[in-house]
Amino acid sequence: MIHEITPLRYSLETETNRTMNEFEYIAWLRQQTKLSPGVLVGPGDDCAVLVGTGATPTLVTTDMLLEGSHFRLSETTPFRIGRKAMAVNVSDIAAMGGTPTFAFMSVGLPRGGAGEIATELYRGMRDIADRFGVVSAGGDTTSWTGGLVVSVTLLGTPGPQGPILRSGARAGDWLFVTGPLGGSIRGKHFDFIPRVVEARQLQDHANIHAMIDLSDGLAGDVGHICVESGCGVELYSEQIPITEAAQATNDGRTPTEHALSDGEDFELAFAVSREDGQKLLASQPIPGVKLTAVGLFLREPGMWLVEGGARRQIAPRGFIHAFE
Amino acid sequence: MIHEITPLRYSLETETNRTMNEFEYIAWLRQQTKLSPGVLVGPGDDCAVLVGTGATPTLVTTDMLLEGSHFRLSETTPFRIGRKAMAVNVSDIAAMGGTPTFAFMSVGLPRGGAGEIATELYRGMRDIADRFGVVSAGGDTTSWTGGLVVSVTLLGTPGPQGPILRSGARAGDWLFVTGPLGGSIRGKHFDFIPRVVEARQLQDHANIHAMIDLSDGLAGDVGHICVESGCGVELYSEQIPITEAAQATNDGRTPTEHALSDGEDFELAFAVSREDGQKLLASQPIPGVKLTAVGLFLREPGMWLVEGGARRQIAPRGFIHAFE
Repeated sequence: MIHEITPLRYSLETETNRTMNEFEYIAWLRQQTKLSPGVLVGPGDDCAVLVGTGATPTLVTTDMLLEGSHFRLSETTPFRIGRKAMAVNVSDIAAMGGTPTFAFMSVGLPRGGAGEIATELYRGMRDIADRFGVVSAGGDTTSWTGGLVVSVTLLGTPGPQGPILRSGARAGDWLFVTGPLGGSIRGKHFDFIPRVVEARQLQDHANIHAMIDLSDGLAGDVGHICVESGCGVELYSEQIPITEAAQATNDGRTPTEHALSDGEDFELAFAVSREDGQKLLASQPIPGVKLTAVGLFLREPGMWLVEGGARRQIAPRGFIHAFE
Repeated sequence: MIHEITPLRYSLETETNRTMNEFEYIAWLRQQTKLSPGVLVGPGDDCAVLVGTGATPTLVTTDMLLEGSHFRLSETTPFRIGRKAMAVNVSDIAAMGGTPTFAFMSVGLPRGGAGEIATELYRGMRDIADRFGVVSAGGDTTSWTGGLVVSVTLLGTPGPQGPILRSGARAGDWLFVTGPLGGSIRGKHFDFIPRVVEARQLQDHANIHAMIDLSDGLAGDVGHICVESGCGVELYSEQIPITEAAQATNDGRTPTEHALSDGEDFELAFAVSREDGQKLLASQPIPGVKLTAVGLFLREPGMWLVEGGARRQIAPRGFIHAFE
C-alpha cells in the first residue's frame, strides 16, 4: 500500500495522547509530495504508478539503516538519519553513472515521539531528494516496539554511457578516487553530498570502464571491482588522499589504514584507460573536485599496497562480514 | 548496493562461529536468483538494472513487516514470515489489476541464528515469488541487535484495464468481495495466496471501476475507496461471507464484526456497475472463487450497515491509527 501506516489488526479504539494519526500523517505526506509528470499515481493507493521508461533501462537500489548499527538516535537527529538514508541510495545511483528519479521510503518508528521523528526523518530525506530532483512516490510507515528502521528503495535512469558496472575494469586501467578518504564516522557519513553531478560530468571527459561508491573502504570496494572484473590491483599508498579527520585520529592505526578501511566515504572509485587517466589528471575537469590516481589494475588477481618503496600483498578480507 | 550485507564499519577481524559470511551469502543469493531476460544486471553491483518498460507504466509498492507487530518469531517460522512479506506486496499489485515482476528485499536480522533465518526467510519469499514469476533482483541484508525486519519493494505491470485505482467507484456501483472475511489471524494472514490471477481474470468479464485488497478489514478498506472516490457505501450484513475461523471465535464480538474489522484477509474488494455486477453473479466466471455482492455505493458520503432490516451508520474510524 502506498502510503500507509501498517496496523497489525484493525482496532476499534482510537488512540488517545496521539501526536499524529494515520490520516493526518498521510495528508501531510501527500502535501509534502511534489508530484512530477512522471508520477501518474502517488501516495494513497495500493501502488504508485510511474510512467514507462521507454527503451531506457531502470536502475534500482535499496539500502536499510538500522538504529544501533548505522546510527544512534541519542547521538544524532532524525533529520540527519533521514538525509543519510536517502543519500546512501543516491550514492549507489551515482556509482552507476545515473540520475536518481523516484524514491520509496519504509520506516519502522520507535514508540514515543514517533510523530515528531517521522516528520523530521522525512524532512531530512527531502533535503537530499529535492537537491537531486528525486520524487518520493510512496512508502510504508509503522510504529513498533523496536528501534528506528529506515529503508529506502530508489529508482534511476542511466547516464550517457549506460549503466557503469563494477565488472568493466581491465588490466592496465588506472584507478581514480574523487576525494579524500577515511575518518567518515566523525561526521561525513551523515553530511556527504552524493557524487551524482560529478559522475555525470566524468562521462563527458572519459570512458568510465568500472565505478563503485566507497562504502566499505577503499580496499574493500576496489576489491569488489577486482572480483567482478577478474583482475587485481596495485594501490599507491602515498597517492591516496586522506581526510583531515583520518589524519587527526590517534588510535594506533595509521591514516592510510583509515583511508583503506574506514568505509562510508561515499566518494567514487573508478577505472579508466591510461590515456583517459592522463587526460583527467592534466585537465581536472570536475569543478571543486580533485581527481586522484591511486592505483593500477593488474592481470593477476590480488591486491598489493606499494608503500615506502616496498610492495606487499594485502588481503581485502576485511570486508567479509559474518552473520553473528 | 545490490545485494550487500551492510557493515557499519569496515572491520579487519573475520568473525568466528559464523554460520554464513557475506560472500557465501551473496554467492548463495546469486545462485538462487533466477535471472530473467528483464534483468540486465542482478545482485552484485551498486544497482540492479532492469529493461525499460516501454510506454507501459510501472507499478511500485512497498511493505515492511516488523517482529512483534506483524509476527512473532516464537510463534511462526522464518519461512512463513518471508512468504508473507512477499505475498502482502504481491496482493497490492493484484489490487491494481497488475502482474508483479521484480522484487527487492531488505532484511534486518536479529543476532543469533541469523544465517539460518536469512535462508529460510528467502525460501519463503521465493515460494510466492516463483508462483507468480517474480524475479528477486536485489536487496540489502544487515544483522543488528534489534528484531527481525523484512521490507519488500515490488514492481509490476498493469493489466488490460490499466492501473485500477481506489478512486473510480461511482454511486450506484455494486461492491464485491472475492472470498470470506474475518479471523485471518488464525492462520490465513500467513498462508493466503494473493489474488493476482483472479484480478486478471476479472478484467476479462467486467469493467472494474475501483479495487483494493482487504488488509485493514472490509469497513476500513471500503472506507478508503469511498474517500478516494468521493462517495458513500451501504453494506449488507447478511451478504458478507464470513470465514469459519471468524464464526468459531468466541470473544464477545459477532462474526460480522470480525468480518468488518479483523483485517489481513487479502481478498479483493471491487466496484462494478450494476449491469456488470448482475453478470458476475450469474456467471461466476472465476474458477474456485465465489464472487459476492456485499454493498452498494451511494452519492452521500458515509458508511451504513444494513442488518436485520435496520440501517445504521457506522464510522470507519477503526482504521485511524495513531503513532504511539
